[in-house]
Amino acid sequence: MKNNIQVKHITIVGGTHGNELHGIHLVKNRQANRYKNRDKLNVKTLLANPLAIEANRRYIETDLNRCFKLEDLNDESLSLKEQKQAREIAQELGGQDLVIDLHNTTANMGLTIILLTDRGIQDPFMVNLLFYLQKKEPQVYILNRSLSANESPYLSSLGKQDLAIEVGPVPHGTLYAELFVKTEALIEHILDFLEEPQALSGTLTYYQHLFSLDYPRDESGEICAMIHPDLQGRDYQPLKPGDPLFLKFDGETIANEQPGTLWPVFINEQAYYEKGVALTFTKKEQLIF
Amino acid sequence: MKNNIQVKHITIVGGTHGNELHGIHLVKNRQANRYKNRDKLNVKTLLANPLAIEANRRYIETDLNRCFKLEDLNDESLSLKEQKQAREIAQELGGQDLVIDLHNTTANMGLTIILLTDRGIQDPFMVNLLFYLQKKEPQVYILNRSLSANESPYLSSLGKQDLAIEVGPVPHGTLYAELFVKTEALIEHILDFLEEPQALSGTLTYYQHLFSLDYPRDESGEICAMIHPDLQGRDYQPLKPGDPLFLKFDGETIANEQPGTLWPVFINEQAYYEKGVALTFTKKEQLIF
Repeated sequence: MKNNIQVKHITIVGGTHGNELHGIHLVKNRQANRYKNRDKLNVKTLLANPLAIEANRRYIETDLNRCFKLEDLNDESLSLKEQKQAREIAQELGGQDLVIDLHNTTANMGLTIILLTDRGIQDPFMVNLLFYLQKKEPQVYILNRSLSANESPYLSSLGKQDLAIEVGPVPHGTLYAELFVKTEALIEHILDFLEEPQALSGTLTYYQHLFSLDYPRDESGEICAMIHPDLQGRDYQPLKPGDPLFLKFDGETIANEQPGTLWPVFINEQAYYEKGVALTFTKKEQLIF
Repeated sequence: MKNNIQVKHITIVGGTHGNELHGIHLVKNRQANRYKNRDKLNVKTLLANPLAIEANRRYIETDLNRCFKLEDLNDESLSLKEQKQAREIAQELGGQDLVIDLHNTTANMGLTIILLTDRGIQDPFMVNLLFYLQKKEPQVYILNRSLSANESPYLSSLGKQDLAIEVGPVPHGTLYAELFVKTEALIEHILDFLEEPQALSGTLTYYQHLFSLDYPRDESGEICAMIHPDLQGRDYQPLKPGDPLFLKFDGETIANEQPGTLWPVFINEQAYYEKGVALTFTKKEQLIF
């Protein structure tokens, strides 16, 4: 597949969530010049939410990584700390060809590349990049979110192209060396490709975001079930109708009622308890190019 | 081994740390009367730090589970939220025969029973109980801390006997059903024994707390290494001189320099980053009784 575009101006972002330590330390490492020079590229770094990093919390007043809708960025009346921070970041990153935003998850999602917008999967250059990464590291999953750039509340959508890298399972506020080293290698593979793009052809496997499911709750709105032990850690594994989904505190199993085979992700992500998300369903797709 | 004492008045505590969800929901389950009656026992429950539970944080102003030294409890000038809460809890639990405090850890510690004081290992009744639990559930580890009751800053030491149950690996702020169900069963085993104590004999294996080790830090005091991938998750496995301990961000491995074989626990516990604890060394001991 032929490449028509150039990606030269790249920003690598850590600490969009202040308790996701891998991105923070990967960016600090890079700022300490521990990596090889990339003469053909302009690679910048950013620690996105310094106050939250200092506090070792996801955010201080509101989730920074939900503050980047164009409408919200243009609304000067929004005055929470993260809303103001988002406007500063948008100014700084507006002209970037590619924004790479580094995240951790407690879900067993390995090395997942999230494309927030549809721009990635529609762009031959990006498809070649993603295919190249999967060849380098078969554990790389691609999750396509298909938001429009203007509607996306996520930081990485600020770039002309966007990649969020979601790495787990890692408890927030901790470092898991094995995944840290793999993430570091993945970033280097991305930069290798951007320096020397290749026109490839093949079959790209990706997961298309569908919808999320909340935990079962009692009359007062409180959670009354957990992810079922048989589902825990089985991100990207097929889930069929009747498979166990939740285990209620009283011992009852709740089965999956969705028709057909689905592929759950973000199973038991800690930060999503407050967002009412127990897991997210995807369908598995292939792009032949 | 003959039993001389009686343990009738028991309090089961959850939410001493507000983001350790297993204990919170186990206590709420019990408050909803989902368990069998224990006619011979007086079993109470307590959610220790309601403000922290509401905030889904370990604590609000200071770690409640470090506020129970007798000297601190008697010092009315200590006025942080958790220091005041500790005095109220001490009043409530003062007369209890046994306080069971439920915790989670991100470390791979399975079902660990922590004896904060030496009273447990010196008491035939408690030794029989612990041995009974290990027979029921071989995954139960016993960790002996050997503090004096007056010097212990931990909540469970308020009882005439103390058990803290430390369950992991679980990211804070999440529920892992498999470990939740096992913890629930363990509590029932404890209550079974207290209703019908047995005089047993055998060999009790336990781990004696020695000392903790901080992460390597740079000149500015910031962490510059992670738990080595070969050590991650290997709680209660023997560690020998020269075994890998840390992986520095620059790629260098730091080896263990402690002489002899040690048995690390609390490896990569999230809440201990701020306390300067990367892991805790123990020695493995056996009590023949």
